[in-house]
Parts: sequence; structure tokens; C-alpha cells
Amino acid sequence: MAEPWKTSVTKVEPNKLTVRGYPLDQLINKISFADSIYLMIKGELPSAEASQLMEAILVSSIDHGVTPPSTLSARTVASTGATFNAALAAGVLSVNEHHGGAIENCMKMLTRAVEQKREEGKSEQEIAEKLVKEIRARKGKLAGYGHRVHTNDPRTTRLYEIARETGFEREYVKMALAIQDAIQQETGKNLPINVDGAIASLLCELDFPSALANAIFIIARIPGLTAHVYEEMSTQKPMRRISPTNHEYEGEEGKTI
Amino acid sequence: MAEPWKTSVTKVEPNKLTVRGYPLDQLINKISFADSIYLMIKGELPSAEASQLMEAILVSSIDHGVTPPSTLSARTVASTGATFNAALAAGVLSVNEHHGGAIENCMKMLTRAVEQKREEGKSEQEIAEKLVKEIRARKGKLAGYGHRVHTNDPRTTRLYEIARETGFEREYVKMALAIQDAIQQETGKNLPINVDGAIASLLCELDFPSALANAIFIIARIPGLTAHVYEEMSTQKPMRRISPTNHEYEGEEGKTI
Amino acid sequence: MAEPWKTSVTKVEPNKLTVRGYPLDQLINKISFADSIYLMIKGELPSAEASQLMEAILVSSIDHGVTPPSTLSARTVASTGATFNAALAAGVLSVNEHHGGAIENCMKMLTRAVEQKREEGKSEQEIAEKLVKEIRARKGKLAGYGHRVHTNDPRTTRLYEIARETGFEREYVKMALAIQDAIQQETGKNLPINVDGAIASLLCELDFPSALANAIFIIARIPGLTAHVYEEMSTQKPMRRISPTNHEYEGEEGKTI
Amino acid sequence: MAEPWKTSVTKVEPNKLTVRGYPLDQLINKISFADSIYLMIKGELPSAEASQLMEAILVSSIDHGVTPPSTLSARTVASTGATFNAALAAGVLSVNEHHGGAIENCMKMLTRAVEQKREEGKSEQEIAEKLVKEIRARKGKLAGYGHRVHTNDPRTTRLYEIARETGFEREYVKMALAIQDAIQQETGKNLPINVDGAIASLLCELDFPSALANAIFIIARIPGLTAHVYEEMSTQKPMRRISPTNHEYEGEEGKTI
Repeated sequence: MAEPWKTSVTKVEPNKLTVRGYPLDQLINKISFADSIYLMIKGELPSAEASQLMEAILVSSIDHGVTPPSTLSARTVASTGATFNAALAAGVLSVNEHHGGAIENCMKMLTRAVEQKREEGKSEQEIAEKLVKEIRARKGKLAGYGHRVHTNDPRTTRLYEIARETGFEREYVKMALAIQDAIQQETGKNLPINVDGAIASLLCELDFPSALANAIFIIARIPGLTAHVYEEMSTQKPMRRISPTNHEYEGEEGKTI
Repeated sequence: MAEPWKTSVTKVEPNKLTVRGYPLDQLINKISFADSIYLMIKGELPSAEASQLMEAILVSSIDHGVTPPSTLSARTVASTGATFNAALAAGVLSVNEHHGGAIENCMKMLTRAVEQKREEGKSEQEIAEKLVKEIRARKGKLAGYGHRVHTNDPRTTRLYEIARETGFEREYVKMALAIQDAIQQETGKNLPINVDGAIASLLCELDFPSALANAIFIIARIPGLTAHVYEEMSTQKPMRRISPTNHEYEGEEGKTI
Repeated sequence: MAEPWKTSVTKVEPNKLTVRGYPLDQLINKISFADSIYLMIKGELPSAEASQLMEAILVSSIDHGVTPPSTLSARTVASTGATFNAALAAGVLSVNEHHGGAIENCMKMLTRAVEQKREEGKSEQEIAEKLVKEIRARKGKLAGYGHRVHTNDPRTTRLYEIARETGFEREYVKMALAIQDAIQQETGKNLPINVDGAIASLLCELDFPSALANAIFIIARIPGLTAHVYEEMSTQKPMRRISPTNHEYEGEEGKTI
Repeated sequence: MAEPWKTSVTKVEPNKLTVRGYPLDQLINKISFADSIYLMIKGELPSAEASQLMEAILVSSIDHGVTPPSTLSARTVASTGATFNAALAAGVLSVNEHHGGAIENCMKMLTRAVEQKREEGKSEQEIAEKLVKEIRARKGKLAGYGHRVHTNDPRTTRLYEIARETGFEREYVKMALAIQDAIQQETGKNLPINVDGAIASLLCELDFPSALANAIFIIARIPGLTAHVYEEMSTQKPMRRISPTNHEYEGEEGKTI
């Protein structure tokens, strides 16, 4: 018999489940779902501040309407009479370099920039300027900056407020802001940090590896996709032509919490 | 130009996002991720008690180790050098009738049973007995009862405690318990409500349609799948033979919160 | 050690591959790809006539332009920077009840109808009339009849010519034609057999189980999806809005073989 | 109204379908399925010799038993009660760098090698030696050489016979063979061209871009996956533990054509 392969995620015994070292039933009602996500992925429970930030990151990504390709492909698949999970899977398959992928790429850029800052003992400003110049020179893309709809993304503003409150406005957030300034200075253009860039800098502060960025975005977006797939299944005709441009919001507005 | 098609999920305007009537940025840091899931799917915010129950349901389903087919297919796909989202999609595609699907089927059964109770003015016990007899007669399956590993699932116990505390031990939970008793009585076998059955009764209490059961399970399980896919990618060799039986937990144990 | 599980598809030994009883290397260059598909699925090689029909069925389904949901979802996923196989998987997930699924449903209807004919000793006409009346009475759908674009599908015409030439115009094809006549008679409407219906009747003649209909359609359509995904990747910009209505063919026309 | 987007794959008009310039109904019964695949992907019909080679390539990849991850993930998903297409999609998602992906990587290597040969005016032998030395120096991988089961793959032998017969033993095949010799010479090890390597060299000869390699492998393997999924669905119990090692072939053997 071959050597058993090893896992550190979950231990299953009769009437006992251990996740990342904790009995699962003891976590129920003691930690939030967002905390359990953090626990599963990082292997440890978040601090109160990290928990607050994690909730905020996940809520901020929950949906972006009908135009993202993940929504369109999930709805298109749903309209063929697919099972619910097939429609969600098509949505999941749409989260790639050009949709959601900016988080991962921005995390890589920030990680390199902060490493350089530490090694070279320079300021955020100096590193950011060098970086922007270099990316412009090779006509590269600045992942996490600018948005096709929002010029001043309210989600970024809110996330950065919480970062300040929770003490997470540290190296990576500062670097992200320095890059925003450097872009303005170098190009004269206002290309503000978008929600992907904000999340990227916060996931760096929380010490998540960039390889997990896409998965975290998917975790956050699956509930939104679920709402769209259910709406498609319960209110629309099968096989309709789903226009990516000609649609209208008819839900409620102006509610406050 | 054709009439625009309608959606009630999310309104996207420049620098403004409205989800289910609320400005998204105002929800960040005010509601938990679990609340935002509830909001997206049900279209309204949960009460404090519903929120507590929703968190508990989601935490209870976060992972069940390496043996469920969703974990095995996600890891198998990951071992080929797949992108992260492709591995997660394969996991999502594994949530069907025989894996996770008991929630939906149990919800349907409980819904019918409670309807019957209301119509016929009978007790839970009478309806449950009739139901178990009828299902046994046609050699049907009692979705949500019994488990191949757990005889007394600690997650069920915990979830039902919270249901009592939050005032959600109502018609559906009572019916689920009555069916458990009726099985014992009819067959002499102890076939306790499993975690799927418990969640089914609670989702009925929360008034979710059964068509959403699979999606809710997927939302809850995606973080667990993420942990497994990341472990596979970062600690295992590509193309290894992934034995579904010969594995060992080497993580921590006995941590307390 | 548990009992090994059994398979009858392919035997793999060092330097030797046996598929459905035949050494694979001996099949290469002796049988066509369509024959090898038939062999894999049915477990035996086709007769010369069945082979001819199988080639025709597969060629007839190879593509239907950019509007089917499988094409749109594959292209939408491709436009996010997905891997090629993720885009194809999204296409595969779109083949369901309302897209491609008419083949399976029509096969089931024809199978029942021909069984009834045999049992009751009646003519195709009698059975077809009864069937159409009954389906109309319960406002059911006649899978395999009518098309949103084609009133007289040239693929159906061609496939039925080949059926006649190869001696496969038998019970199921006759039943399919009788149902077409019965619709005309009962409703006064011309609702001709579409390509799905024609394929359904031919797969019945070839004695394929209806459970394989969707898979056969997917096998036939994957090359078309491949052409679309490659075109999307090599000629279009990422994240474009893919209109399902506002597109134009700019390829060649009028070529003859 | 926006400018329509352009496609060159298929034109759909009422009662008329044009694929790559040809009326589809005129192709049915005139060309084989393999030819129609070639037509869809390359945009033109193959020569008689290219057609013969295309059939051979597709037949050679039709299946490789139950151990490839694509088979295992498709069967695992099927065992949960999934729809047929969901199981196939999970198989498709498994075709990546370490499974099937050797074709693409080998095509890239051969393309660079043949370019170098042309530019530098050297012999295959010289280029191959340099290449093997360089890859060994950086501990790189030689995609398309060696196999975990086969030391002398009968499919490679057969494919190269056909290449010779059809006049396709040209630059790329010669380079592939020269690399095989160079490996032997440099390392003393026999690491023969495997079926992926053989197919890679032949797809180069047929002038397919390497970006299509994975898709062509998927087209060829989907029928094999179909056979496995159907066997799983029709002969096995749901949710069984699918051992990747403990299985046995119980089909026929020794059939000849």
C-alpha cells in the first residue's frame, strides 16, 4: 500500500470535523462566514481588525451589475435550461486576466515595488515614479488603476477609510497611493486606484499570496452571480438574446441602512 | 432599437453602485459578508436573528475534507496545471443530486409536508408518519437523513441550538424532527437528520426557495475548495494519482477559540 | 485491498493500447475519426452505411454561427483572457434542454411512438395523430419541429436523402415524417422537422440511447466552438461587449467542392 | 446603432448555412467529419494527404483509459448525478500544461528550432544538439519526449509511417527525430518521441498555430470522455470512491479490423 498523501485543511472523523485545527461545530455561531473564509485560506483566524477588513473586501466585490462577462456568461448558460451550478461555473470561468485579474497583477506589482523600496531604502514616491516610467516605456499596463465606468470609485474610498481605521494603511496601501500620484505627475492624467487596486493593496497588507487573488474575487462574486442566475431563470424566457448594452435597472433605489 | 431588458439586482452608474436598493459603498463596513449574500439573494437585509442563522449555515458547510467529489475533481483538475478558476469550476460542477443536492430535495419534501399539515390540520407527527410510510412503500430516498461518516452530526446539533436561540425552531424544523422520529419508529433504525437536512429546514424557515439550495451550498463551499486547490498547487506534484481513500490529515488539532 | 473497479472502454499496457477490443495503432489510418467516435460510444465499428450516416450527422452539426448561446458564452469567456479550454468548457455547459437538447427529447418521443406502434399494431399515421393531439391537449412542446431561422432546413433535406441512400429510412424516420404531417393536419401550420429532429430520428435508427444525444451534439459542435474561440482570441479586443444581434459575416461565400 | 462586429466562421441565413465559404448542406456526405474539423479551424479544406493525416491524428488521441485526469475528473463529476455536459466540461477543464499540453509546448519548441535552422543554415542535427544542451543546462523540460507508461509508443510509430506515406515527413518531423537522437547522445537515455510529440510535429507540418493544439486534443478526446462518462452513469453507483490505480479492464481484446 502506498504512503498516504497529506493534507492540512480538514480532518474528518465520525461525529467530529476539524478545520484548520478547530472543531468546526465550535466555530459555528462564534465566528462570521468571512472569518471562516479567512481561516480556511490562511490557516488561522483573523485579528478583529483583519476580520473587519476581510468583511469589507468581500462585501465591496459582491456584484457589478449585468455587464461583466462573468454575469453575461452565467446568464447565457442559464438561459439554455442549464442546472444552476453549470451557470455559476460558466461565471467562474470568466474571471481571468481582463476581469477580476487586475487584483492579482496589481498585487504582484505592489509586492515587487515594496520589496524594492525595502532593498533600496528609498521612499514610496521614488519607487512609484521609477515604476510608472518603466511601465510607460515598455507600454505596459498599470493593473488596478482607472475604470471604464467610475472616475472616483466609491468602493475604493470606503475601503481605504476602513484601512485607516483598522491600522492597515501601511506599506502596500501607501505604495498604491504613491503610484496613483506618480501616474498623475508623469502623464497628467487622473487614473485613480480602482476597486481591484484597492483590494490588491489590502490583500497585500493582510499577507495573502497573489496566487489567491482570483479565488478571493470568485468567493466574493459568486453570491452576485447567484442573484443574476436566479433572476434569469425565474423571470426571463429561455434562449433570449441577452444584450450586453440594452438593459435597464428596475429594482428599488435610495434605501438606507 | 429593441426594448431594454430588465434587472433588479444592481444598478451601475458612474461613481455609484446600487445593490438591491442600497448604495454599495454604504453597506461596506456596516453589514457582514453573510448579510450581503442574504441581501443579494433575497433582495432584502436579514433581521438580526436571520443574520445569525445565515452566518451559522454558511460556516457549517465550509469544508468536509478531501473525500467529497467536489474536492477530488477540483484537486484533479488543479494537478494538471489548470488555472485556479478552472479547478474551482470543476468543483462547482460536482455539486449535484448526490453531493449537496440533498438540501434541495429535503427542502422540497419539507415544503410539501408543511403544506399538507396546514391543509389537513394534522400534527407534525401524523404527517411525518404518513410521509415515511409512503416513501418506504415506493422505495424512495429520504433526503437529509443519515450520513456515511457521522451518526450524530455535531453541525446539526449546533445549528438546531442556534435555531432555538434565534426563534427559528418553527414549522419546518419541527417537521424535520418529526420525520426523524417517524423513521426511528417505522424502521427501528436511527437515521438522524444530517447537516444537509438541518440546513434544508433552516433555509425553509428563512423562506428561501428550494431552487437556490445548490447555489447557497456552493457559496459556502467555495472557500473550502479554494483551500484545497491552493494546497494542491503549492504542495503537491502535478499529475499525481490522487487516491480518494489513502490520505492523512497532518494539520493542527485541538485549537480552541 | 479493495476489489478493482471495472471498465470496458480502453486497456492500457506498456506499448499497447486496446480500445473497445481493437489495438488502437491498427485503427489509425484504417478507420475515420467518425468511425472511431462510433466505436468508442457504441462499442463496435459501424457498417459502411452507418459510417456514412455518422459522418453526415456530425458534419451537419459542426456550426451554426455566432448566435447560439454556446458560441456566445464561449466567446464571452474567451474575451476575458481565459485559457482555450475554459472557453470551450463554457460552450459545452450551454448545451442543454433549450440548445441542442431537442435531439434527446425528440429521441425519447420517437422511441415511445415507435414502441406504441409496435405494441398496438397501428400505422405511423395513426400513432402520429394521437401523439400530436395529446401533446397539443397538454400544451406540450414538439421537440425537433420548427426553427426560429429556417423554414425548410437544407441540412434536414440532405440528411434524409442520405438516410434513404443508406437504407436507414426506417421506422423512426417514417415516424418523424408522419408526425410532421400530423402537425400540418392538426394545426394547419407548417412546422417542419428541423436538424435536431432529423438527427434524433437517425440516432434512433443507429440504435444510440437518448442519454447520449447531448454528448454527440457536443462532439459535433466543439470544432465550431474552437473556430469561434480562436477568432475571438486572435481578432477581437478583450472585454468587448459581444452583441448577440449586431454582427456581420465577412468571410468568403459561394465556394463549391 | 454601433457598427456590427465581424466574423468569418459561419453565415446564417434563412434556409442557408455557409461555413468557411461553403454551403453546409453541400458538404454533408461529401467530406468526412475530420475534414470538416480541418475546414472549420483552418478555413480551407485539406488536401487528400492532409485529410489522411488529420484523420490519423484524431483517431490516435481518442482515448487513454481511466487514468488521465480528464477521465478521472469527468467520471468524478458524473458520479455526483451531474448532467452529461457538466461531466464533459470537467474533463475539458483538465486538459492543461501537464495533460495534453505537451503538444502545444512541443509545437513551440519545434517551431523555434526550425526557424533557427532556416536562419542559421545549419542541419537538424546541429540545431537539435544545441537545443538539448541548452534545455538540460537550464534544467528545462523536453515536451513531447518520454512517457510514464510507453517506452515505444505504437501510436507514434503508426503516425510517422503515415507521415512518410503522405509526404509529410518534412522539416518538423525531421527536427523531432533529430532531437530524439540528440537526447540519446547527450544523456545516454532513450527518451523517445511520445504521441504528443508526434502529433506536435505533424500539426506543425499541417501549419496549425500552436495556440490551437489544446483545442485539437480536446476535439479528439471528447469522444473517449463520452464513453467513460456513459459507462460511469450506466454501470456504477453514485458517489463511489473512484480509485485512480485500482481498476481493471473487462472489455474485449484481440479484435482485428
